Amino acid sequence: LDPHRQHLLKTFSAVRALSRALAEPLSAEDQQLQSMPDASPTKWHLAHTTWFFETLVLGAHDRGYRVYDDRFGALFNSYYESLGPRHPRPQRGLLSRPTLAEVGQWRRHVDSAMQAFIAGASEAAWSAAAGTIELGLHHEQQHQELLLTDIKHAFSLNALEPSYGPALPNEAAAKPLGAPSWIGVEGGIAKVGHGDDGSFAFDNERPRHPVLLAPHRIATHLVDNAAFLEFIRDGGYRRPALWLSDGWAAVQAHGWQAPAYWRWDGIHGDTPRDARAIDAAEITVFTLHGRRPLDVHEPVCHVSLYEAAAFAEWAGARLPTEFEWEAAAAAAAQTAANASIPHRFDLQHLHPARGLPGRGMQQLFGEVWQWTGSAYAPYPGFRPFTGPASEYNGKFMMNQTVLRGGSCATPPGHLRSTYRNFFPASARWQFSGLRLARDGI
Amino acid sequence: LDPHRQHLLKTFSAVRALSRALAEPLSAEDQQLQSMPDASPTKWHLAHTTWFFETLVLGAHDRGYRVYDDRFGALFNSYYESLGPRHPRPQRGLLSRPTLAEVGQWRRHVDSAMQAFIAGASEAAWSAAAGTIELGLHHEQQHQELLLTDIKHAFSLNALEPSYGPALPNEAAAKPLGAPSWIGVEGGIAKVGHGDDGSFAFDNERPRHPVLLAPHRIATHLVDNAAFLEFIRDGGYRRPALWLSDGWAAVQAHGWQAPAYWRWDGIHGDTPRDARAIDAAEITVFTLHGRRPLDVHEPVCHVSLYEAAAFAEWAGARLPTEFEWEAAAAAAAQTAANASIPHRFDLQHLHPARGLPGRGMQQLFGEVWQWTGSAYAPYPGFRPFTGPASEYNGKFMMNQTVLRGGSCATPPGHLRSTYRNFFPASARWQFSGLRLARDGI
Amino acid sequence: LDPHRQHLLKTFSAVRALSRALAEPLSAEDQQLQSMPDASPTKWHLAHTTWFFETLVLGAHDRGYRVYDDRFGALFNSYYESLGPRHPRPQRGLLSRPTLAEVGQWRRHVDSAMQAFIAGASEAAWSAAAGTIELGLHHEQQHQELLLTDIKHAFSLNALEPSYGPALPNEAAAKPLGAPSWIGVEGGIAKVGHGDDGSFAFDNERPRHPVLLAPHRIATHLVDNAAFLEFIRDGGYRRPALWLSDGWAAVQAHGWQAPAYWRWDGIHGDTPRDARAIDAAEITVFTLHGRRPLDVHEPVCHVSLYEAAAFAEWAGARLPTEFEWEAAAAAAAQTAANASIPHRFDLQHLHPARGLPGRGMQQLFGEVWQWTGSAYAPYPGFRPFTGPASEYNGKFMMNQTVLRGGSCATPPGHLRSTYRNFFPASARWQFSGLRLARDGI
Amino acid sequence: LDPHRQHLLKTFSAVRALSRALAEPLSAEDQQLQSMPDASPTKWHLAHTTWFFETLVLGAHDRGYRVYDDRFGALFNSYYESLGPRHPRPQRGLLSRPTLAEVGQWRRHVDSAMQAFIAGASEAAWSAAAGTIELGLHHEQQHQELLLTDIKHAFSLNALEPSYGPALPNEAAAKPLGAPSWIGVEGGIAKVGHGDDGSFAFDNERPRHPVLLAPHRIATHLVDNAAFLEFIRDGGYRRPALWLSDGWAAVQAHGWQAPAYWRWDGIHGDTPRDARAIDAAEITVFTLHGRRPLDVHEPVCHVSLYEAAAFAEWAGARLPTEFEWEAAAAAAAQTAANASIPHRFDLQHLHPARGLPGRGMQQLFGEVWQWTGSAYAPYPGFRPFTGPASEYNGKFMMNQTVLRGGSCATPPGHLRSTYRNFFPASARWQFSGLRLARDGI
Repeated sequence: LDPHRQHLLKTFSAVRALSRALAEPLSAEDQQLQSMPDASPTKWHLAHTTWFFETLVLGAHDRGYRVYDDRFGALFNSYYESLGPRHPRPQRGLLSRPTLAEVGQWRRHVDSAMQAFIAGASEAAWSAAAGTIELGLHHEQQHQELLLTDIKHAFSLNALEPSYGPALPNEAAAKPLGAPSWIGVEGGIAKVGHGDDGSFAFDNERPRHPVLLAPHRIATHLVDNAAFLEFIRDGGYRRPALWLSDGWAAVQAHGWQAPAYWRWDGIHGDTPRDARAIDAAEITVFTLHGRRPLDVHEPVCHVSLYEAAAFAEWAGARLPTEFEWEAAAAAAAQTAANASIPHRFDLQHLHPARGLPGRGMQQLFGEVWQWTGSAYAPYPGFRPFTGPASEYNGKFMMNQTVLRGGSCATPPGHLRSTYRNFFPASARWQFSGLRLARDGI
Repeated sequence: LDPHRQHLLKTFSAVRALSRALAEPLSAEDQQLQSMPDASPTKWHLAHTTWFFETLVLGAHDRGYRVYDDRFGALFNSYYESLGPRHPRPQRGLLSRPTLAEVGQWRRHVDSAMQAFIAGASEAAWSAAAGTIELGLHHEQQHQELLLTDIKHAFSLNALEPSYGPALPNEAAAKPLGAPSWIGVEGGIAKVGHGDDGSFAFDNERPRHPVLLAPHRIATHLVDNAAFLEFIRDGGYRRPALWLSDGWAAVQAHGWQAPAYWRWDGIHGDTPRDARAIDAAEITVFTLHGRRPLDVHEPVCHVSLYEAAAFAEWAGARLPTEFEWEAAAAAAAQTAANASIPHRFDLQHLHPARGLPGRGMQQLFGEVWQWTGSAYAPYPGFRPFTGPASEYNGKFMMNQTVLRGGSCATPPGHLRSTYRNFFPASARWQFSGLRLARDGI
Repeated sequence: LDPHRQHLLKTFSAVRALSRALAEPLSAEDQQLQSMPDASPTKWHLAHTTWFFETLVLGAHDRGYRVYDDRFGALFNSYYESLGPRHPRPQRGLLSRPTLAEVGQWRRHVDSAMQAFIAGASEAAWSAAAGTIELGLHHEQQHQELLLTDIKHAFSLNALEPSYGPALPNEAAAKPLGAPSWIGVEGGIAKVGHGDDGSFAFDNERPRHPVLLAPHRIATHLVDNAAFLEFIRDGGYRRPALWLSDGWAAVQAHGWQAPAYWRWDGIHGDTPRDARAIDAAEITVFTLHGRRPLDVHEPVCHVSLYEAAAFAEWAGARLPTEFEWEAAAAAAAQTAANASIPHRFDLQHLHPARGLPGRGMQQLFGEVWQWTGSAYAPYPGFRPFTGPASEYNGKFMMNQTVLRGGSCATPPGHLRSTYRNFFPASARWQFSGLRLARDGI
Repeated sequence: LDPHRQHLLKTFSAVRALSRALAEPLSAEDQQLQSMPDASPTKWHLAHTTWFFETLVLGAHDRGYRVYDDRFGALFNSYYESLGPRHPRPQRGLLSRPTLAEVGQWRRHVDSAMQAFIAGASEAAWSAAAGTIELGLHHEQQHQELLLTDIKHAFSLNALEPSYGPALPNEAAAKPLGAPSWIGVEGGIAKVGHGDDGSFAFDNERPRHPVLLAPHRIATHLVDNAAFLEFIRDGGYRRPALWLSDGWAAVQAHGWQAPAYWRWDGIHGDTPRDARAIDAAEITVFTLHGRRPLDVHEPVCHVSLYEAAAFAEWAGARLPTEFEWEAAAAAAAQTAANASIPHRFDLQHLHPARGLPGRGMQQLFGEVWQWTGSAYAPYPGFRPFTGPASEYNGKFMMNQTVLRGGSCATPPGHLRSTYRNFFPASARWQFSGLRLARDGI
C-alpha cells in the first residue's frame, strides 16, 4: 500500500475509534438528547459522520457499494441542500430509531467498506476520493467536539446534573500563570491562511494571502475567571454602555448575569443580588464531570461574543482580529516557545510585519476558543470545495464571528494556527473565552 | 385482610403491571421521546405515576417511608403548584437520567412499600389514604392512555415510521355497521354525573344532578372515515363558512387537509391537489403498528374539535352536548342493549326525560373519544378533591371541550358513562372522533 | 311613512349621530391608533360600520346604489369570509388613507342613500332589508362601545396619558352602596333567551328556551375596588391555588399584579413590592379622562375572567352562570325594583323557578360587564342570521366566556337582560368586572 | 458673526427646512404611520431630530434654555441608554400626542433657541457645542432619508397604494448606460477612511488608515432590473446553492420571489408561477409616487444583502468589499470623471495601489445604496464620539453589513466616499442595490 493510503487508513481507524470512545460513557438514553436546535444528540453525531462517508465517498466513488439503508440519508443529512430533503433539525432528538445499536452496526458496515475502499480502490477512484476522505475525517473531528459541548448543555438542564465522565485532561486544576502582559506588534504585512503545502485545511482557510496588520498590542494570556468576576462585581452585566446593542438586548432577554453554567445562591431568584456581594468562593460551575467550585485561575469559558466584547470594553481594550491572533500564533510556533502547540502545526513565515510575539504568548491552543473581532468572511480568492462539500463553509459566511485556537474539547491533531471556527455572537454553549488586544503599541 | 384492602391490593398490582406491559415493547431510547410540550415520554409517565403514590400516599400517610430519591420530586411533579417547583414541561424529553432501569427500580421500591402499606397500615392511616390510592390508580390509567397517544405522535415524526407493536385489540379491521340512524329524544329532566354509591369517580363527575335536555336526535353510530372523506372531497377544508373562526385560523396556520396521520400522494406538496380527486384507496394512515391503508369503515379518528364541528356543520347537524351523550349512554346501558359497555358501568336512572335511546345506540365506549358541544365546566356544587389533589381537575376548567366515551387506547375498567375527558379544541393527537346530533325530534 | 320605517329612520339618524359624536373629541391622529390586534382605530370603526350598511343593505337591496369606492370593501370588512379578502386585522392602524375627512364623506354619502332607501324602498325591498338595517344599528352600537375601550387602551400606552374627554356620565364618583348581601334562589326551570315578540335581538340570544337553575345565591352588588384591593393585599396575585391553570400562566407571562390601568409606585419595578403594603390612597387609575385616584367604592373594572375567577375562589364563591344572572335580572326588571334598567328591557316571565331576586339586586346594567361562569355556546335550536350576517356570532362560539349587563360605555338603549357579550378569558381592555354567586341557598 | 457660526447657522436653517419640506406632502394621519418596528413615523422623525438638538446641544450647553416639555424626552429618545428610559420602539406609531401641530411648535421653539445659541453663545459654550450641532445636522439628514423609506414601506401596505408625491428627481426614467464593464485593480495599499482635514465625518469613518487591497475587478455600473430579472427567470429564488444559509432561510420564511415592491399577476397566489414565464412588461413596482411599470434600465433596488449575494453568485462574481468600493470612488473623484459626485467629496490620495479606476466608474453616488461584502466593524484605532453621542455608531457593530454610495433618497450634501451606512442582511426597505466585483484582474 502506498504511504498516503497507509496514512489515511491509520488515521481513519483512529478518528473513527475516538468517536466511539467519546460516546462510550453515555447510555443509549443519554445519546438521544437534543437540548436545543443548535445542538444534536450524540447518536446523531455518530450517524451523521457515517452518512458523510457513505454518501460523499462510498456512494460517489465505490461502484460496488450498496447503501446500508436508503432511508438514513434523509435522517442524517445535516444541511446539504444538494443532497435532498432532511429530517428537521430541531427534531433530531426524536430519532429513537434507528437504535444506537443499529447506528453502531451501520458504522461498522461503513468502516469496513471504507477500509476496503482505501486499500483497494483503483488509482482513478482513489485520486477522486482521497480529498473527500480526508475532509470526512476532519469533519468527524469537528463533530467530536460538538458531541462534548452538546451533551454538556443537555446535562446542564437536568437537575440531577449528571457527569459525562472523568475530567478532560486539560480541565484539571489550573495553575496561576501570573498577570498577563501586553506584547506590542508594530504592524505591517503578514501572510495568513493556509498555503499549498499539501497538508489538509478547510476551504475557508485558503488561499494564503497577505493582510495588513495595524500596530497593536496583544495579551500574553487569556482572560481568567478572576478577572471576569471583577467585571461582574463591577456591575458589568448592568451597564448598557459596555455592551453592543444586540448584546444588551440579549442580556435583558435571557437574564444573563454570568457566564453559562455559573451558579451562585439566588442567581435565578426574582430579586437579583447585588453583584458586588458575589464572592468567588460561593460560585460553582457545571462541567462535564458535574458541578464543581469555580477555579479563578482557569480561563473564563462559555461566554458569548457579546460578553467577551463587553468585558474588553470594560477593560479598556478590544478583541484581537483573527489575523492579529493568527500572526501571533504563527510567530509563537516558529520560535517553539509554546510547548502546547500541536505537532501538525503549520509554521508560517511572516514578514515584513515586525515585532510579532515570538515569545511570551501563552494559552494559544486547546484551552478555550478565543472570540476575535472579525466577522466570518471569505478570503480574497476563496474557492469552496467542489461537489456537495461546496456547502461546507461558504454559505455560513454571514452573521457569524470567528474564533481561534481551539478548546480543551478539540480533538488532538485537529488544530492549526490558520484554523477558523465560527459561531453566532450569542452562542455560549461552546468552550469559548477571550484574549484581549489594544490599538497602538 | 378486609375485602376493600384486598380489592385494592389486587387492583394496584394489575394497574401497575399494565403500565409496565405497555412500556415493554419500547426501548429505553423510545421511552425518552417527547415530541411536543403536550406529550410526555413513556419513561416520564412511568415515573410520574410512581411519584404520585410516593408523594401523595406514602409521603403523606406512611410514617416509616423514606423517599427513594428526594431529587425526583421536582423532576416528576406534573403540575401541582402546592408541591413545589417542577422540571419544565417541554423539557421532559431531556431526562436521560434517571435511567429507565433506575425508574424501574424506583417503581419496584414504591410498589413494595405500597403493598406493605395497603396490607399493614393502621385503620386511621388506611382510612385517610384509601381514597388517594384509588385516585392514584385511575390517574395511572389515564397516563396509560397518554403513553400510547404520545408514543404514536412521536413515532409519526420519524420517517422510519416505527411500529409500537401488535395492533390494539379493537384496532382490528372494522366491520360496516350500516348507515347510522337518528334516535329522537323528547327532552326533559335527566340526571347526570356520578352518585354517592361509593364507587370511584373523579371530582369533576360530581355531584350527580339534574339537567334539562332539549328535544333532540342523536346518531346511533360514530362518523366513519367514508363519511369524513366525503367532507374532504366536497372541499370541507377549503370552505370557511363551515368552520368556527378559531378553527379556520388553525386550518390555515397548520395547513390541515385531513385528519392527523392521514397521507396521500402530494398532500404536503406546495401545490395542493384538488380534493375531489382524492380516492380512498390511495390514503394511508399512520397507526401504532405502522402505516396501513385507510379503512373506510372505521370511525374517523384524530380530528380536532374544529374538524368535528366543521363536519357536523357540513352534515347539517351539530355535536351532542355532553349531557345528551351521557343520558343516551346511560339508557343504553340500562337496557343492556350495548354489549360493549364495561362491567363497572354505572346504571343511572333517568326520568322524566322520555324517549332516551335505550336501543340502537352503538359504539358508545372504547372506540374513539367523542367530541361534544360542551365546554368543560364545574357541575353545580362541584367540590374538588382535598389536599394536593385539589389541583387535579378544577383548574383546567377553561378553554377545554368535553369528550366522552373513551377510545381503543383507554384501559379496561376505566370508563363509565359519567366520565369526562377534556382537551383544547385544537388537539388532534388523542384518539378523537365524533357522533352527530340534531336539534328537535 | 309607515311607523316602522319612521322609527327606523329616526333611530338610524340617532345612532349614526352618536358615532360621530363619540369620535368628535379625537383628532385625525388619535383616530388612527391601533394599539393591539384586538383593538381597532376609531376611524376604522366609523368606516366599518358604514361598510356594513353599504355592503349588506345598499349593495344587496338597493338596485340604484353605486358603491362609493370599491376599494373600501377589502379595507373595512372585518371578518366576513363570504364577502372576500380583507386588509389584515393587525394593520388597521396603517390606513392613513382614506383620510378621516374622506371617511366622513363616505359616511354622509351612505347616510343619505340609507335615508332615501328607508323612506322610498319598495315594499319588497323594504321587507327584505329591514332586518339587516336594524342589525346594522345594533352592530354600530357595539362598535361605539369598542371605540371607547380601544381608544382608552391606546391612550394608556402614551406616557402623556391623554384624556379622551369629560367623564362618561356614570363614571362619576361612586357612592357606597353598603355591603352586598346574598339572595337565595331555590332553583327550578327558568326561561331564558329572547322571545318572538318582534323586538330586536341578536341571533345568539335565541331561541327563548327553558333552563334548569340549581339552587344558588347571588350577590346583590358588584365586587368593588375595596374588596379587590383586599384580594391583592392578601397575596391574591401570588397564590397559584386561587387560579385557573391558564390564568396562573397569564399572571406569570404578563406580570399582572392588579387590574389593568391600576398603578402604584414601583408596580413595574424589578423588585415587586410586598402586596400587603399597598395602600388604596397611593393607587391611581387611568381613565378616559386621564389618570385619577382610585375610588374604592366603584365596581372593580378591567379584570380578566381569570382575575374574576381567582377573586371568587378567594372569596369562597364562584361566578354566576349566565342564566342565573339573566333570571335574576329579568325578575328584578319585573318588580321594577331596579330603576336603572333600560326602558326597552324585555320583561320575561319566569317560572316555576322560585325565589328569584325580584328585590335587592343592584348594579345589573350599565356599570361594568359582568363575567359569568358560562362558556359562549349556541342555545338549543340556535339559527344564525341568514346571508353574510350568518358569520355574525356563531363562528365565535369557542374559547370565549359570556359577560352580561353592559358597562358605562355601552350606548343607551342597547342593553337587555338576554344580551350576551363574549370575550376570551384573558381580555382586560373591556370595562369588565364581576358579581359573586354561591352554590346552595 | 464668525464664518463657522455663519456657515452652521445657514446649514442649520437649510437642513431643518428640508425636513419640514419632506413632511409637507403628508397629512397628520400619514405622519402617524409605523409599519414595522424598524421603521418610524414621519412625526417621530421630526420630533426625534428636535429632541437631539434640545437634549444634546441646548440642554447640555445653553444654561438659559428651558426644556419645552420634559415628558418628550422619554418619548423621542431613540436608543441612548445613557439618556434614560424610552418609549418602546415598536409603539412609536401610537403617539397621536403630541400632535403634529405641537411637534411643529416644538420644532420652532428649538429652532429659535438653536439659532440664538449659534449666534450668541460664548466662545467656550460654542467650542464645546459646535461639533454636536454639526453632528445633529448630519443626524437629521439621515432621518430625512429614513423618513422617505419608512413612509414608502407604510404606504405599500395600504391597498390604496397612496402616492407620497412627485417623483424624486433621480427617480425619473433611467437611460440605458450600455453594458457594464470590468475595471481591473492590481491591488496594494490604499488609504481609506476620513482624514483630519476638519470636515465632518461620523466616528465610524475614522481614523483614516491604510488597507491592503487584493487584485480585483470592479464593475463600472450597478446591476439593473433587466439583469436581475434574468436571475429570477433563471430560477434564482428557487436554487439554494446560490444562497447564503441564512438567506435561503429568509427566502423560505418570507416567500421572497422578487425584490420588495415588485408585483406581477399571481405573485402572491398559492401556486407560484413558473419564473421563466415572467415577462418584464407585466411587472409593476410600488414607488413613492405610486405604482408604475418596471423600468428595466434602472438599477435594481430594494434587495436584501442575501439577494445581492445570491445574484452575485449566480453571475459568477461577488460583492466588492467596502474598501474596494471606497478606493474606486475616491479615484474616480480625483479624476473628476464622475460629475455626480457631490461637491464636498473628499479627495483622497491613494497609493501605492495601482490601477484604481480613475475613469469609467458610473453610478457611484446617489442611485441606490450598494451592498458590500464587508461586515460593519470598527476601524483600527476607532474612537467613538464623546458624551451621549458615544452610542451613535459603535454599539451597532455586529450583525450588520456596510452599504456605500447613498441613494436617490439621500439628501444632497450628505454623501462622501468614506461614508458607511449599515443594515442587517435581511433589510429590504432601504433603497438598496448592488455592484459586482471579482477576484483577480
